[in-house]
Amino acid sequence: MTVVGNFFTVRDDLPGRRGRTGVIHTPHGDIHTPAFVAVGTKATVKAVLPETMKELGAQAVLANAYHLYLQPGPDVVDEAGGLGTFMNWSGPTFTDSGGFQVLSLGSGFRKVLAMDTERVQADDIIAKGKDRLARVDDDGVTFTSHLDGSTHRFTPEVSMGIQHQLGADIIFAFDELTTLVNTRSYQEQSVRRTHDWAVRCVTEHRRLTLARAGKPYQALFGVVQGAQYEDLRREATRGLVGIRDEDGRGFDGYGIGGALEKQNLATIVGWVTDELPDDKPRHLLGISEPDDLFNAVAAGADTFDCVSPSRVARNAAVYSNDGRFNITGARYKRDFTPIDAECDCYTCAHYTRAYLHHLFKAKEILSATLCTIHNERFIIRLVDRIRASIGSGDFDELRDHVLGRYYSQRPA
Amino acid sequence: MTVVGNFFTVRDDLPGRRGRTGVIHTPHGDIHTPAFVAVGTKATVKAVLPETMKELGAQAVLANAYHLYLQPGPDVVDEAGGLGTFMNWSGPTFTDSGGFQVLSLGSGFRKVLAMDTERVQADDIIAKGKDRLARVDDDGVTFTSHLDGSTHRFTPEVSMGIQHQLGADIIFAFDELTTLVNTRSYQEQSVRRTHDWAVRCVTEHRRLTLARAGKPYQALFGVVQGAQYEDLRREATRGLVGIRDEDGRGFDGYGIGGALEKQNLATIVGWVTDELPDDKPRHLLGISEPDDLFNAVAAGADTFDCVSPSRVARNAAVYSNDGRFNITGARYKRDFTPIDAECDCYTCAHYTRAYLHHLFKAKEILSATLCTIHNERFIIRLVDRIRASIGSGDFDELRDHVLGRYYSQRPA
Repeated sequence: MTVVGNFFTVRDDLPGRRGRTGVIHTPHGDIHTPAFVAVGTKATVKAVLPETMKELGAQAVLANAYHLYLQPGPDVVDEAGGLGTFMNWSGPTFTDSGGFQVLSLGSGFRKVLAMDTERVQADDIIAKGKDRLARVDDDGVTFTSHLDGSTHRFTPEVSMGIQHQLGADIIFAFDELTTLVNTRSYQEQSVRRTHDWAVRCVTEHRRLTLARAGKPYQALFGVVQGAQYEDLRREATRGLVGIRDEDGRGFDGYGIGGALEKQNLATIVGWVTDELPDDKPRHLLGISEPDDLFNAVAAGADTFDCVSPSRVARNAAVYSNDGRFNITGARYKRDFTPIDAECDCYTCAHYTRAYLHHLFKAKEILSATLCTIHNERFIIRLVDRIRASIGSGDFDELRDHVLGRYYSQRPA
Repeated sequence: MTVVGNFFTVRDDLPGRRGRTGVIHTPHGDIHTPAFVAVGTKATVKAVLPETMKELGAQAVLANAYHLYLQPGPDVVDEAGGLGTFMNWSGPTFTDSGGFQVLSLGSGFRKVLAMDTERVQADDIIAKGKDRLARVDDDGVTFTSHLDGSTHRFTPEVSMGIQHQLGADIIFAFDELTTLVNTRSYQEQSVRRTHDWAVRCVTEHRRLTLARAGKPYQALFGVVQGAQYEDLRREATRGLVGIRDEDGRGFDGYGIGGALEKQNLATIVGWVTDELPDDKPRHLLGISEPDDLFNAVAAGADTFDCVSPSRVARNAAVYSNDGRFNITGARYKRDFTPIDAECDCYTCAHYTRAYLHHLFKAKEILSATLCTIHNERFIIRLVDRIRASIGSGDFDELRDHVLGRYYSQRPA
């Protein structure tokens, strides 16, 4: 088994808080943290070439085990030489375990997310499989493909097998996703289940790593659940930190997942990072809003991923230092300025709001490409600036300056 | 009025035939002919960045007056600094007059194209406006927008005005499109009408050029119609060649348009080029099939445009030296070779058939981007090779070699 000597190096600390800068060392290069990881769900960052992602500063790409399991199948990716080779991305890669997707893509789950108070009903729909799209039991999850309605089953061992075939540098343990509206007793049961699955993931990861000797080592991250409950989050974290395989090896890093209320994000991340060792990286799953990024970094998160910058770009919503706006607005038809005059991206250097407005009105594919380039660059650059500000001691000044403009003004 | 001294230079001739190589000199650079001009209908080559088009060898881009008139409007493009600036393409540009689109986008016209023999009925539908989407009269065409059903009118003067606002380096006279199934008498009437419109285009072009003094001169090409009739084609060509404005200036080049039966393409182009002066470039509208390209070049055509390479790419059809095939075929799911091992394009250098197959199955936008890059490069490179073969005296060898493989074999 390959020994990974120095997987993560801490560089600078944010005085008085848990925030820090560091470097994650992977077989495909270093990731300087804090870092925003671009999402390439199906082995492509939608509408953008991988070289363009690299040029705009993306350090790593995260793909999804659920989607790639269904299409093209992990064996195809394996035979292609792994995720990075398959998609022509030479840098570091992550794969999400599929836990979120097998549970969230069922229509019943979306119904639960839309509810506010009926907690018992939420438990029923999710856990007992009343939506008939995903049924959770202590061994794993049986679910229905969102593509063709066929039935599949993920267990911790299946997820590890898929992620080993996909071959990303950083992979995640298989976890159960709950919502803010599940009952407390369901959350307790779920945290126990996610812990048991984490143990099985570590065991299976060791077995598969030994079986695939000679391939680059894949780092395994445990995923902390526990929703909005401090005791559950802390208990879940301590539980994961204590897991060791028979060689004494634990998780290489940790993901922070599950239901996070925006207003409590910093608090919840803080509970978790309180309990985590400093020498392992922490990935916060699914956030990219500017205020969330500052809060999460200050609370000690190192990396982030989110589909939002590219998803909203395809719907014509673009970021600027003065807030987000929709380029299809009539006022942009004859606006010959860039999206954001202060942005250094390819799109802002070469195209006007009027042209982007036209591309959306004309339903042209290039609209998605150009606005995704801008949005990904905007968020990646923001996180790069946050990283630099920790080194230079200007974090609070940067936060106040950026968030003050972003949330208080209306875009020109 | 700007005097264009040396708009077109002939270099090498194809012995015994009308084919030749040359250089078209435009304010935005030279076009080495024969050349395939990429189509960017709505001021974007669908799914591909302009820098990528330049890297893959595109010398010029052709956009469409009808589409840009409806969206975003020619005044917006004008205010942006013209077509090239608007779309971030620094090389030479063409605009099509809109004549083809105002007539062909009506559903009645498509019905005519689907018919074989009922010529009188075809005349009725097209000329008398029974489809109620486009009505031709001697002054112009009244048509219904395919976008919102609103009514518009193009005349030669309107088309010139739009194309002057769009600002392309090479623009086309407004012409009437007929089909192979119109009656002979309708074709005669139509050729006379297209001639009268050409006279009006030359007059209006002079007026607008003088009014917009200081802007780069836009070259105006007349369009030869006449369908499959030798006498009409020759008469139409001689008629256009004779047109002069009050300063004695004629067309800067000629387009060959209208109904062309594939099996008679070389013959029809030959009739036209027989009548054309050697010192003006000839653009054959709407072809890109390998056999058509060889035939058209040998018959004396200099430039070509066609939506086909990018349109079929978006439907997963890709060119190879051994013919065209559809990458969604099940046999390509685990095919880890490039589309064409002999191709020098970006897509073939970095991606496998298996990955492209996956992108189409996953309905990913990048599928359109990567296959368009390949197809455009394939056709542009083929025309580049044809150009080189004229210079080196190997035209016939190249034609036999390329067409022999392309049409007789099945792709691996």
